[in-house]
Amino acid sequence: MERIVVALGGNALERSGGDGSWAQAVVQMREAARGLASAVREGAELILTHGNGPQVGVLLRQNELAEREVPPRPVDVLVAESQGQIGYLIGQELEAALARERSPRTVLNFPSRMVVDAKDPAFQSPSKPVGRFYSEAEANLLRKSRGWAMSRDAARGGWRRLLPSPRPLRWLEAEAFLDWMARRKPASTVPIVAGGGGIPVLDRGQGRCEGVEAVIDKDYAAALVARTVAAPRLAILTDVPGVAVGFHRTWERWLGSVSASELREFHSRGEFSVGSMGPKVEAALEFLNAGGREALICDTTSLPRALRGQAGTRVRPG
Amino acid sequence: MERIVVALGGNALERSGGDGSWAQAVVQMREAARGLASAVREGAELILTHGNGPQVGVLLRQNELAEREVPPRPVDVLVAESQGQIGYLIGQELEAALARERSPRTVLNFPSRMVVDAKDPAFQSPSKPVGRFYSEAEANLLRKSRGWAMSRDAARGGWRRLLPSPRPLRWLEAEAFLDWMARRKPASTVPIVAGGGGIPVLDRGQGRCEGVEAVIDKDYAAALVARTVAAPRLAILTDVPGVAVGFHRTWERWLGSVSASELREFHSRGEFSVGSMGPKVEAALEFLNAGGREALICDTTSLPRALRGQAGTRVRPG
Repeated sequence: MERIVVALGGNALERSGGDGSWAQAVVQMREAARGLASAVREGAELILTHGNGPQVGVLLRQNELAEREVPPRPVDVLVAESQGQIGYLIGQELEAALARERSPRTVLNFPSRMVVDAKDPAFQSPSKPVGRFYSEAEANLLRKSRGWAMSRDAARGGWRRLLPSPRPLRWLEAEAFLDWMARRKPASTVPIVAGGGGIPVLDRGQGRCEGVEAVIDKDYAAALVARTVAAPRLAILTDVPGVAVGFHRTWERWLGSVSASELREFHSRGEFSVGSMGPKVEAALEFLNAGGREALICDTTSLPRALRGQAGTRVRPG
Repeated sequence: MERIVVALGGNALERSGGDGSWAQAVVQMREAARGLASAVREGAELILTHGNGPQVGVLLRQNELAEREVPPRPVDVLVAESQGQIGYLIGQELEAALARERSPRTVLNFPSRMVVDAKDPAFQSPSKPVGRFYSEAEANLLRKSRGWAMSRDAARGGWRRLLPSPRPLRWLEAEAFLDWMARRKPASTVPIVAGGGGIPVLDRGQGRCEGVEAVIDKDYAAALVARTVAAPRLAILTDVPGVAVGFHRTWERWLGSVSASELREFHSRGEFSVGSMGPKVEAALEFLNAGGREALICDTTSLPRALRGQAGTRVRPG
């Protein structure tokens, strides 16, 4: 069995423009589960991770909307909640799909924390807009009273809180997880790890970690997980067919098989957007740089074909 | 090392009458962690589980208060979120306390699902009041539009949703967990399982489980976990020193060492309240009946003394 770390996008689980209902998330995950289950049937040993952008945004909005009656919880706690929520969704749908493929497995969710550096430049310049929209007056007040960074969303007409997005440095549960991986019965379980990029914590020394209000990009976390478990392949699933140069321009061109150096060259020319394809490309390059054999970027349903070299963008070292 | 299943009460984690802030929950868990860490230092192999009554109530309230802007999620999903939330809290504080006791461990959270029976009588008579308060007119509307069971809380002047509380029948992750327990490195990890009583699901056959809007009593889930892992002892932690007969009466008497048959006798006389001490006593009796050696009911901080027979109510078989 070939070990593959698969990163499911938070947007791949929650279609933008949908009604945001749980029923819709279930339908969408059911679709994603089919591809994952085929890959397992075809012999892949999957280690799953997932994003949580839309979901942690919803949790934060609920906290903000209800805050007159219920004290809001810090963002690291909401990330922990999103791990419980999304892990449950993936587990239910993936187990059903695996049973249909006659490859029954128990899906085990391993909520995970990631140590980040208090000196990470991301803390000086928060960049991820999250939660509800505020008026300009409210935004100014929140800046002063809570020290929040706020940014104006011109298109949607309002102000939102900005969260820092530091790099994950160390996966706290890694040793325990590797111990489990080495000893578990093969072909009986599919693990989920480092959901939502992991809960961001600062290492305060003497065994004490402290949560910090931030969100970690799941693509960087996935690359760290893939290196940790020594997976030859990393697949980053999203809602587009792969990596394109000239994305949404008349000269748009989808990349099939590509070398790391070619991809790096495109990236240095600014081909990939900062909050979206950029981190995926960087995570793929980071993974290959650390000895990975192949990085895939493809849409959720075409994973089995991408693994066979027939879909998505496939990045090779060199 | 002696294996002990420890059930932390949701109320033991969140002090009633407090401000409901996260900071307060942290302080309270820090206190609880000291007792758990001493027990580990003294040689106990802990398997933790926990309630989620107050926490799932808060999540439901936030869902209800924000529902004009954000579609609410089903209760089973909120239970999953509470597992992520509380597992993170326990992990952070317990790891720090264990490091102070020079017994460092990684705390691993295993989110868990429990199969319940669609024919469980609890579904015919929901009994757990949860979430926000409604007016009588709103309550009548919700009864009709959503089929909710509603009950009036005379003391607090309002109506609340009632959820069914079915018995847990089967722990879906049990086999995978036992496999992990059998193979893990000893003395390196403390697992958390079946948080909040487990996520309630119905087994639809052919590998498909479906979430159901219910809450499982964590005491019954703890007894099931203790039987599954063949623990000789089960400790149910709460915010009172133990089991009392004539609780809050002039003839109140705290029970120290007591036999299962004595305790059963008190229970049959209606000594223990339905939603609170009743389930703890029943879970203790169930556990002893299935071959357990000792069941403890005590307050959170006196666990180490209770394990040495010096505090709490200690129930022996027979």
